[in-house]
Amino acid sequence: MLRGLSGAGLGKLESGRQLIELAGRYGFQAVDLDARALVREYGLDGARELLAKHNVVLGSIGLPVEWRASESAFQEGLEELASHAAAAQALGCTRCCTYILPSTDEKAAHFMAVATRRLRQCAVILGAYGISLGLEFVGPHHLRERWKHPFIWTMEETLDWIAAIGEANVGLLLDAYHWYTNELGTEAIEALRPEQIVHVHLNDAPNVPVSEALDNGRLYPGEGVIDLAGFLKALDKIGYRGPVAQEILTAEAPNGTPEELAERSKKGFDLVFEAAGIR
Amino acid sequence: MLRGLSGAGLGKLESGRQLIELAGRYGFQAVDLDARALVREYGLDGARELLAKHNVVLGSIGLPVEWRASESAFQEGLEELASHAAAAQALGCTRCCTYILPSTDEKAAHFMAVATRRLRQCAVILGAYGISLGLEFVGPHHLRERWKHPFIWTMEETLDWIAAIGEANVGLLLDAYHWYTNELGTEAIEALRPEQIVHVHLNDAPNVPVSEALDNGRLYPGEGVIDLAGFLKALDKIGYRGPVAQEILTAEAPNGTPEELAERSKKGFDLVFEAAGIR
Amino acid sequence: MLRGLSGAGLGKLESGRQLIELAGRYGFQAVDLDARALVREYGLDGARELLAKHNVVLGSIGLPVEWRASESAFQEGLEELASHAAAAQALGCTRCCTYILPSTDEKAAHFMAVATRRLRQCAVILGAYGISLGLEFVGPHHLRERWKHPFIWTMEETLDWIAAIGEANVGLLLDAYHWYTNELGTEAIEALRPEQIVHVHLNDAPNVPVSEALDNGRLYPGEGVIDLAGFLKALDKIGYRGPVAQEILTAEAPNGTPEELAERSKKGFDLVFEAAGIR
Amino acid sequence: MLRGLSGAGLGKLESGRQLIELAGRYGFQAVDLDARALVREYGLDGARELLAKHNVVLGSIGLPVEWRASESAFQEGLEELASHAAAAQALGCTRCCTYILPSTDEKAAHFMAVATRRLRQCAVILGAYGISLGLEFVGPHHLRERWKHPFIWTMEETLDWIAAIGEANVGLLLDAYHWYTNELGTEAIEALRPEQIVHVHLNDAPNVPVSEALDNGRLYPGEGVIDLAGFLKALDKIGYRGPVAQEILTAEAPNGTPEELAERSKKGFDLVFEAAGIR
Repeated sequence: MLRGLSGAGLGKLESGRQLIELAGRYGFQAVDLDARALVREYGLDGARELLAKHNVVLGSIGLPVEWRASESAFQEGLEELASHAAAAQALGCTRCCTYILPSTDEKAAHFMAVATRRLRQCAVILGAYGISLGLEFVGPHHLRERWKHPFIWTMEETLDWIAAIGEANVGLLLDAYHWYTNELGTEAIEALRPEQIVHVHLNDAPNVPVSEALDNGRLYPGEGVIDLAGFLKALDKIGYRGPVAQEILTAEAPNGTPEELAERSKKGFDLVFEAAGIR
Repeated sequence: MLRGLSGAGLGKLESGRQLIELAGRYGFQAVDLDARALVREYGLDGARELLAKHNVVLGSIGLPVEWRASESAFQEGLEELASHAAAAQALGCTRCCTYILPSTDEKAAHFMAVATRRLRQCAVILGAYGISLGLEFVGPHHLRERWKHPFIWTMEETLDWIAAIGEANVGLLLDAYHWYTNELGTEAIEALRPEQIVHVHLNDAPNVPVSEALDNGRLYPGEGVIDLAGFLKALDKIGYRGPVAQEILTAEAPNGTPEELAERSKKGFDLVFEAAGIR
Repeated sequence: MLRGLSGAGLGKLESGRQLIELAGRYGFQAVDLDARALVREYGLDGARELLAKHNVVLGSIGLPVEWRASESAFQEGLEELASHAAAAQALGCTRCCTYILPSTDEKAAHFMAVATRRLRQCAVILGAYGISLGLEFVGPHHLRERWKHPFIWTMEETLDWIAAIGEANVGLLLDAYHWYTNELGTEAIEALRPEQIVHVHLNDAPNVPVSEALDNGRLYPGEGVIDLAGFLKALDKIGYRGPVAQEILTAEAPNGTPEELAERSKKGFDLVFEAAGIR
Repeated sequence: MLRGLSGAGLGKLESGRQLIELAGRYGFQAVDLDARALVREYGLDGARELLAKHNVVLGSIGLPVEWRASESAFQEGLEELASHAAAAQALGCTRCCTYILPSTDEKAAHFMAVATRRLRQCAVILGAYGISLGLEFVGPHHLRERWKHPFIWTMEETLDWIAAIGEANVGLLLDAYHWYTNELGTEAIEALRPEQIVHVHLNDAPNVPVSEALDNGRLYPGEGVIDLAGFLKALDKIGYRGPVAQEILTAEAPNGTPEELAERSKKGFDLVFEAAGIR
């Protein structure tokens, strides 16, 4: 597995370059960022050199398409998707991820039908550039009733949705926080084949009842109550070899400079990877 | 268009043979029945002769797969689907239909995902035998809250679902009763391309508020308040040339012998086809 | 059916605007041209006004993706496809077409596999903008052995390929010249459903043995030996209502100004449409 | 990896039961046979007990559909596929395999289009029962010109075909003999992801020039010149954990009783697994 960083949890970063530098400095091997923006800023060769210089690969890009709103917003985003995918491919990245809100103001069944077709269209475009689409189920209980109708939030539902989308390059983004808030155990991970997992997020939860863990109340790995050692061990056991990226969503910006926060992240990763016996 | 009969609305029929005979006698050109059962009873040649003798073609078979319940029930039904499709094909039939209940006890979004995958699998099997799958949206208001969660019941939702299923041989079963209870006008039909319509049902509604029209409270064509002339004219205008089959669902069996009911059906069809100016 | 013009057969045109003007002036109702280029030159509103002013709609755009060569060339073209599709959609166009060379220097089976996947990816992108993909089989005999291995050139093969691609929005571009050089009769057209035809090309062939009719030796409609009246009648009979566009490929530029050639085209269309009894 | 036996290489077996018994007795963990026939003979419980008693699982069934000949032959086979798949699933089997002849009397491109659609239909049916479809490329040089037109025979071509088929549950059947006759090295295996491999065949080749190795001239593992240790090591390295089944095709039946031949097979497997350092 590759230790990864996203911008979430490092305070206010100035640039993708800073994220790459911090990742390299604190022993992370992958970063999640906007590939096309990086290529546009540094040129393709410049972007490659920047990553190589810091011994960092590109873990995942975010899906730059609004698939939850109007058809015209979707079509506008879709126009840009191939160029994002091409940039990611040129930088060696094979993952693109999006998340699923657990409730919706739309009629749930109809929204599912529309979203299935839209994500299939996204997946086909990404697939043309060798990129997989990871879908992140989102577990925190408060979001399940945040909007009018329940949508989906469990791993099983998400796997069923992936089957409905029907493209070979779609899989899970497995986030430790959502695994925890769904009250899943390690056996749920061990029941997966590694190719069903496109990407992994790592973060921790405060010591409150599971049903009260807030989506934007996340802690750094090792600072909370999630069995992250078990989580990582299960992933290792089934043969997952991709990135495991920190994504600390918080209501308020964490205290500290990006430098300090990256160091804190490193300590967290060291702690839980060591506990899992994975070096 | 072909005038068609199903068993619904003819009282208690003894056999498929009787349906075929009645259809032939009363000027119907198509029947909806179980193709495989007919072939098993009369042999392929016998079944073909029976249809030919009465100048009747096979309009549609019903989808013999339970796609709304457990996975094992689905798989069991799917085992039989190809042989049903092969029998239909051998008798020259190109349609297979199922209906969509407007509400469900399952979580709606998850059920939609599972059903999308299942209907896609059905469509692929049917397609191997040149058969299209027609999905019937069901409009009566009382069914929208009959089960725990709303599912889908409009034409637009169903078209979006067809796009999500993503197979070229899936389209609408357009039933006049559901068109009426959705309060659609002729312009909704005129906005369709004919290949989007796999099959059509014809029946009428009592003179009660639309929201009180019951699914099993249907009348014979011409005996109620639906603008069936407008319905048929719109279908004709866009170039629909397939069967238009009676399907009278009633709470209690209608009065009269099958013979009398078929004659009543003929009168109803004569009336509304004449009113539509279609011979 | 809509009478259509492409740039092929009008000599050296200065611009898309000129094509639109000539179409309008000589009674054509559709033009085939590059939608995105038009929008970029005149703005979306300007392009719409230009078309409206001349009573002309956009019949089809050409597929701007090189699907016959290297994977990287394919990917580069694919990056641009969605924006072409969006421009076409904005101008009300629902068709995008490409042609199939009858032979290839690649191993034929492998090339077919790769091309199937590529055209499926193109079709999915186009479908997101409501656009169908038309595949033109190419009949002239000399091209069947022009490259090392035979590929496909018949209507039946192309329909089988469309089924292999497996997307609902893929169909035929039916060109009278290729219909003729495949020695097909009107019954071959009458066996089609109208939705299987995405677009139609109209042009004529010289009075030479069919096997010697050259791909770039085409004549204006009515000036040659093809039964274009039968061709149009068959299309009308099955309910085809889309554009029928002239596309005169010639070894040397035809004599005459664009104005004169458009007039000549009009005469040819008048002749064969009248012979077909279609106004 | 699981050591597996098929009937090929054991002389004339009397029954599936005998294959299972021999597998159990000689340390094989999987067998390839007709699941439905086994269930029909012993009942579902009986078949499960038989496998369990001998510590053997069902590795793969053969695809019981003729996809290379007429459409009617294909449709007939397809009618039976779901029941084969259901029987396999009930016995815990997740694989179904077929092979690709390297040349064909059909026009190669058209045959590829038709076969792509047919195998997609097979894959969808198999997928409904949790079963993957493995495609075996066939390397021996003499078969490349055995029929009129070259088809495909390399691993790369087969992977491209799998992408064209476009279903997530289709992958390779990797046979050591075809790997060898395609002159592939271990790096070709190491470039694969394990989920791209549905099934593996193990057998050896005589010491003749590669181009003269005949498809039905195969040797038992360890008795020939193929680097089977390298082959197995590469599979192990990428994480392949499925069955590796012997399939010795020979022009004449091998000498010896099934008992003796199973023992010989065991020795061969011991030899090459040991050489590969895999216990």
